[in-house]
Amino acid sequence: MILVHSFNSSIDITYQIDHLNIGQVHRPNTVIKNAGGKGINVAKVLNQLKENVLLMGYIAGNNGKTIKTKLEDITLSNEFIETDGESRICIAINDGLHQTEILESGPLIKKVYQKEYIHKLKRKQHCNVQVISGSTPILEDATPLEHTHTILNSIESNYNIVDVRASELQQLLQYDEVHCIKPNETEFDELIGFTCEHLEQRIDVLKHNPLFQNKDVFLTLGANGALIKRNNHLYRAHIPNMQIVNPVGSGDSTVAGIAYGIENLFDDEMMIKFAMACGISNAMNEQTGYISLSQINELIDKIKVEKI
Amino acid sequence: MILVHSFNSSIDITYQIDHLNIGQVHRPNTVIKNAGGKGINVAKVLNQLKENVLLMGYIAGNNGKTIKTKLEDITLSNEFIETDGESRICIAINDGLHQTEILESGPLIKKVYQKEYIHKLKRKQHCNVQVISGSTPILEDATPLEHTHTILNSIESNYNIVDVRASELQQLLQYDEVHCIKPNETEFDELIGFTCEHLEQRIDVLKHNPLFQNKDVFLTLGANGALIKRNNHLYRAHIPNMQIVNPVGSGDSTVAGIAYGIENLFDDEMMIKFAMACGISNAMNEQTGYISLSQINELIDKIKVEKI
Repeated sequence: MILVHSFNSSIDITYQIDHLNIGQVHRPNTVIKNAGGKGINVAKVLNQLKENVLLMGYIAGNNGKTIKTKLEDITLSNEFIETDGESRICIAINDGLHQTEILESGPLIKKVYQKEYIHKLKRKQHCNVQVISGSTPILEDATPLEHTHTILNSIESNYNIVDVRASELQQLLQYDEVHCIKPNETEFDELIGFTCEHLEQRIDVLKHNPLFQNKDVFLTLGANGALIKRNNHLYRAHIPNMQIVNPVGSGDSTVAGIAYGIENLFDDEMMIKFAMACGISNAMNEQTGYISLSQINELIDKIKVEKI
Repeated sequence: MILVHSFNSSIDITYQIDHLNIGQVHRPNTVIKNAGGKGINVAKVLNQLKENVLLMGYIAGNNGKTIKTKLEDITLSNEFIETDGESRICIAINDGLHQTEILESGPLIKKVYQKEYIHKLKRKQHCNVQVISGSTPILEDATPLEHTHTILNSIESNYNIVDVRASELQQLLQYDEVHCIKPNETEFDELIGFTCEHLEQRIDVLKHNPLFQNKDVFLTLGANGALIKRNNHLYRAHIPNMQIVNPVGSGDSTVAGIAYGIENLFDDEMMIKFAMACGISNAMNEQTGYISLSQINELIDKIKVEKI
């Protein structure tokens, strides 16, 4: 079973308008509302892959009810802790050229609900793969680091993938419970504290920086594929040129692909191809957190993985 | 009893941000969420005036539940018909200089719910003053005109104030059931089909245009006060210079003041002063649809009404 945590779930609203004019009134042509947040995207993709996935998280108020209903509409197994306040709304205003975003912070998670979460998690005893993805909400009397660490220690798990902001990740990497991270180039540079000039430098950092000792690192490079450190071996993934429609959620889809590969005991090369294919397939689709199985099968043949 | 209809209620969200940059991600400094829509503002003000007011309307989904909860938090009596879909969200992005708005259209109101509304309304038998305020939602098999006309004929009422968009109002004015309208200058010009050059021209139109025959017209002129036709007498209201904080909802507060004045048998001059004071008090407050009783009392002394 793959357990996915989405601590700060949201209703993602996309407004399609002709042109955003500051100071004006707009009536959108189309309005799309989805359950959102990075963890939810990961779980959605695993659900489409027919994997045995359980989504956990905090939800609040009527927005939380809407999130839960939307997940049940796609029969995604979920267990949420209901907290005070209202789950956040994340707004994207699309005018064809630009995406302007307004992101709410979400409700404060009181200690009583943090305890309830841990209690529920401990009752599950074990899972094979666990994913923590997306920002941590505002917590009463706890830092994001403490919260994530407690979660990781509340259930027996063979493999933990953590995909949170670089500032949190840096400290989290000190813990043995973090097995895999998936930064992009910007996040990687933020993590190591300086900007890499070229691929060779990134390879060198992956090999020697103590931050990544005994960690799997899936460093995505956009159109240039990825650099992967897995079981202390280094790989380079080359991807084909594809028609990108909407890259939002591609990182989350890649995380889903990694989790799927680990859960299904794929060898390193196959796991890397599969994860890359999930990310690209998401980018080839309009909707965020959606992949196509036939696209993935086609892509796997076109992705090349070399050991370096 | 004053009955207020709000057919297309919304959750009004105001995001306060430092600067709106197209194509960028914004995390708002403050987020304010209110039950909104012109009818709800009218009812809110009447509720603050401790008037016996009942709010009716359509609400839908979890957003509808949020609207209802917010009204119950301020103990505003309400009876809604719950329909399919989701009540709309109206977003205002404020960066100190500009207000950029995104207004959803709201759900389609199926015939079955329109009938349920009429049925509920007919059971009430009578009210003294009735207000229809704000845009009509998308209706199955009915025009806004037919819908409003049916509502006006479903309950015995002594005085009906209708404050909807000018395009609907023009046709509605043919009905005897419409007793009072409250256009601003722009809406007035739209209603009569040409732009008035000066006050005298507006007075002339109010006196002689058959559109306004036997109708009370409360024509607001912003800082220039108002022109009022009441019982076929004409009045001019002069208002003092005040510190305007947020004029949104001032028209709705004026409507509430008119309804209050009619319900409480104020003479024409007092009704006009009271309605103007409600509008100004709203504009002097940050929040939409909020007035201060002490401000109103002070303002009434400063507003001058002359018969013309």
